[in-house]
Amino acid sequence: MLNPENPVISFQTSPDQYRHWKLQIEGSVARLSMDVQEDETLADGYKLKLNSYDLGVDIELADAIQRVRFEHPEVSAVVITSLKPRIFCAGANIYMLGTSSHAFKVNFCKFTNETRCAIEDDSRHSGRRYIAALNGTASGGGYELAIACDEIYLVDDGNSAVSLPEVPLLGVLPGTGGLTRLVDKRKVRRDRADVFSTLAEGLKGKRAKEWGLIDGYFPTSKFQESIDARVKELEGASTSNKGIKLNPVQFQTGDNSRDYKYVKLKLNREQRYADLTIDAPEGPQPTTADEIFELGDAYWPLQAYRELDDALLHLRVNEPLIGLVCIRTKGNADDVLAIDRSLAANHDHWFVREIVLNMARVLRRLDLTAKSFFAIVEPGSCFAGNLLELLLASDRSYMLNDQDVSIAVTEMNAGAFPMSNGLTRMQSRFLAEPEKLDEVFGDKKSFDTEQAEELGLITFAPDDLDWEDEIRVAIEERTSLSPDALTGMEASLRFAGPETMDTKIYGRLTAWQNWIFQRPNAVGEKGALTNYGKPTKAEFDYKRT
Amino acid sequence: MLNPENPVISFQTSPDQYRHWKLQIEGSVARLSMDVQEDETLADGYKLKLNSYDLGVDIELADAIQRVRFEHPEVSAVVITSLKPRIFCAGANIYMLGTSSHAFKVNFCKFTNETRCAIEDDSRHSGRRYIAALNGTASGGGYELAIACDEIYLVDDGNSAVSLPEVPLLGVLPGTGGLTRLVDKRKVRRDRADVFSTLAEGLKGKRAKEWGLIDGYFPTSKFQESIDARVKELEGASTSNKGIKLNPVQFQTGDNSRDYKYVKLKLNREQRYADLTIDAPEGPQPTTADEIFELGDAYWPLQAYRELDDALLHLRVNEPLIGLVCIRTKGNADDVLAIDRSLAANHDHWFVREIVLNMARVLRRLDLTAKSFFAIVEPGSCFAGNLLELLLASDRSYMLNDQDVSIAVTEMNAGAFPMSNGLTRMQSRFLAEPEKLDEVFGDKKSFDTEQAEELGLITFAPDDLDWEDEIRVAIEERTSLSPDALTGMEASLRFAGPETMDTKIYGRLTAWQNWIFQRPNAVGEKGALTNYGKPTKAEFDYKRT
Repeated sequence: MLNPENPVISFQTSPDQYRHWKLQIEGSVARLSMDVQEDETLADGYKLKLNSYDLGVDIELADAIQRVRFEHPEVSAVVITSLKPRIFCAGANIYMLGTSSHAFKVNFCKFTNETRCAIEDDSRHSGRRYIAALNGTASGGGYELAIACDEIYLVDDGNSAVSLPEVPLLGVLPGTGGLTRLVDKRKVRRDRADVFSTLAEGLKGKRAKEWGLIDGYFPTSKFQESIDARVKELEGASTSNKGIKLNPVQFQTGDNSRDYKYVKLKLNREQRYADLTIDAPEGPQPTTADEIFELGDAYWPLQAYRELDDALLHLRVNEPLIGLVCIRTKGNADDVLAIDRSLAANHDHWFVREIVLNMARVLRRLDLTAKSFFAIVEPGSCFAGNLLELLLASDRSYMLNDQDVSIAVTEMNAGAFPMSNGLTRMQSRFLAEPEKLDEVFGDKKSFDTEQAEELGLITFAPDDLDWEDEIRVAIEERTSLSPDALTGMEASLRFAGPETMDTKIYGRLTAWQNWIFQRPNAVGEKGALTNYGKPTKAEFDYKRT
Repeated sequence: MLNPENPVISFQTSPDQYRHWKLQIEGSVARLSMDVQEDETLADGYKLKLNSYDLGVDIELADAIQRVRFEHPEVSAVVITSLKPRIFCAGANIYMLGTSSHAFKVNFCKFTNETRCAIEDDSRHSGRRYIAALNGTASGGGYELAIACDEIYLVDDGNSAVSLPEVPLLGVLPGTGGLTRLVDKRKVRRDRADVFSTLAEGLKGKRAKEWGLIDGYFPTSKFQESIDARVKELEGASTSNKGIKLNPVQFQTGDNSRDYKYVKLKLNREQRYADLTIDAPEGPQPTTADEIFELGDAYWPLQAYRELDDALLHLRVNEPLIGLVCIRTKGNADDVLAIDRSLAANHDHWFVREIVLNMARVLRRLDLTAKSFFAIVEPGSCFAGNLLELLLASDRSYMLNDQDVSIAVTEMNAGAFPMSNGLTRMQSRFLAEPEKLDEVFGDKKSFDTEQAEELGLITFAPDDLDWEDEIRVAIEERTSLSPDALTGMEASLRFAGPETMDTKIYGRLTAWQNWIFQRPNAVGEKGALTNYGKPTKAEFDYKRT
């Protein structure tokens, strides 16, 4: 991870394997407690002191949130706290950042951002309340974890504070949405946000509350009972919903492949692109909520998208040289359409709701992946309904002009899978001609190549004679371009139209952070990040850019 | 400019001094023709071939647009074209970019972006139509200039094209809003935008029109008459409005000062901050539109803000080591309030409208300046009405807790000076408590320090005993921080709330471009920008970040 010799990073874990978190379920309350083991790092060269974290810690957090949603639907409130005395969380480990490559830092921040957004997604769509119970100081990423929660309470022990010390101490930005959530979510006045973000020691209870940084503070002696009381107020009526079990995602790896049950990844390393194929479900599929629940995590829309999620994360972190992903689908489109019908028919069931929300998150993970995506539509493909989103999420699509090829829409394309900007991918596509949406979602649901091209659903429609050459040349051209310019270009073109807090975090804040993460003032020999904790002091080039 | 030995860059010019543009007024039509003189560069080391541009060329363009608005109110349509055969404009000069410092590139792009936004501001608020008459190829910044116009027409000569070749040829982004305007203004489908932005040779008439990149194309023989016909359709009823003359902004420079009539700049270079003081008008001020017109560019709101604009540009480009600007105002607040009353009372008059729109643009220039701003409110200050915007635009404000100090609002603070995000600075300030706006704009118009603090209009209110120390320490602390981290932090905190095309350009696109402008793949020894036009070829590190 930090260097090519390191082993492949796995994004899979489960509560019995957690090293840094404890997940306890008590009735309708989940208690998620951080207790980072300082030696259990993902790489050498740093210790995770003071509940600071590396990617390994955040992978567990992401897993815990996912498990609460699927395995514990009875939970209506999640309390995030720490088992360490006087410290909630010190944020991302600075020595880890200091010794990481630029690319790793960027990927690390992206994943932690996605984890925080997943908390907010759960709160917004599934109604679970997240309470940050800060039993000690929350600094940097520690406070950023807190502001991803619905409510923040700080212990008033004369010492504990919330802070974003990145700018004054490290010469970088709070990298996990902190600045954006400060002014956009908590709507802290910008001059106060300015003071707070340049104040290394942060603010304690009274002033933190006055400035809107926290929602309340309690003395040490009353902290636990006050949190408990607040949780009691928030707790929903306990439901008798039983969860399903999320089993490990299984795959087989070869030298140039990673094959899951439904998702197949082929790595063409020499040419710097990957083929990613998703198989349609096979055989009869459940149609009622009970049958779906019975299948649990083996139900295609859950299993295939969990596999896709793992494949995307693997590509991001473990295959940095792969610049382009060619997406294909394989199977009977009718089977995919049947899935969409069942999901739509049973959308009131908690499990179906969580399945669809997870699909939406995985698709957003794709939107935010810094690799190019081409959708390749050939005979035998099934870009229908939810799988059509893969085509719409791609930077381009190529559809063979052949009468045996078609794509299809379902009602799921009209709202179930919003992008980070709040629009559906269809809306984003037809910003210039919103009236086209009526045609797309009219009586005709399936479109052959010429119809798809006419409607504007695909980019190119080469015929059989040109097909192979055109795809080959497109791949060669794409993978020959500057990977950095492509990342910036794709980040700009993928998100037209409105902006949301999420797009501001991934588009604006991340881009500034990436810029700063490269500046000598941060990472140079005399940079603040490099010199943190050393006897040497940072020296800046004070020219303003 | 490109190195410290270069002379100070001046942002002032006038049509009789233009070297690269011709501005012709024919009735209600202005014809702005680009004819770049390749040797008339702002620095050594490059030639401005093929109507490529450097900052000097854009300073003339910005001046021309400003003059049309003030000197030629009778103009209702502006045609932007080229006097070179077969080429409209080749964009920013690549050798200029290749030999510029990172800081200069960033400032160059910011200014050219502001010039393009000024075109759109004129179109939106003053109703002038801008027609890009592309009599030859428009590539890169050339096409970006075109999409800042209302309509784009391309000659169909079998050769001329529009293109954004930055990604494929240079490994950087189109840096002047191109990608954003492509998908957000012209709403080009993102897959087509992707293809277009990776196609070095661009697209010619028919396909360019089909994809929405241009509004029409005409054969060479009919180009001029077709443009003329379209202009005739767009041209408004010719008005008898007479313009005023924009005389050169005058100032005196000392070693550490730059003093205009109303704006005084004192440079504390050792401590890396500047004091910027704006004087209120003195003596009786005009109250009718006729009297205001009579005064012309000597009218305080025009002269003082033109001076402020020049001072800001000077600080940006010529004083990179100044990291903080302390803003003060001096004079009688009643005189400033009287100005606001006159502006509001006469807002229907074209000249008053242009004055107010210019003030709004200058204030936005301040919002977008990568330096910290502290407003300092002392006895004798006059942060009232339009000058209060300077305080609201600042990252923080310090107001002496003394009964002789006050600030005041006018109706101008409620809408005349929108930020790039479309909100007033008051709305941005009170995102969390919009109801506060009723109090701020209630019957009471003037607030002493305690009232201002209570209302949330200021950040800090030290008393006389602490005042000097607190200001001194605040300045010392601010100027000790990493200038890069401050730039990213301020860009994030200043623009809470909604986003617009402008904020996307300055916040998202610019940040990605700044990142890429530092990457070895662009500017390293083997980078694409470095090796453009050389016999050597770019070599990329293909790791995706």
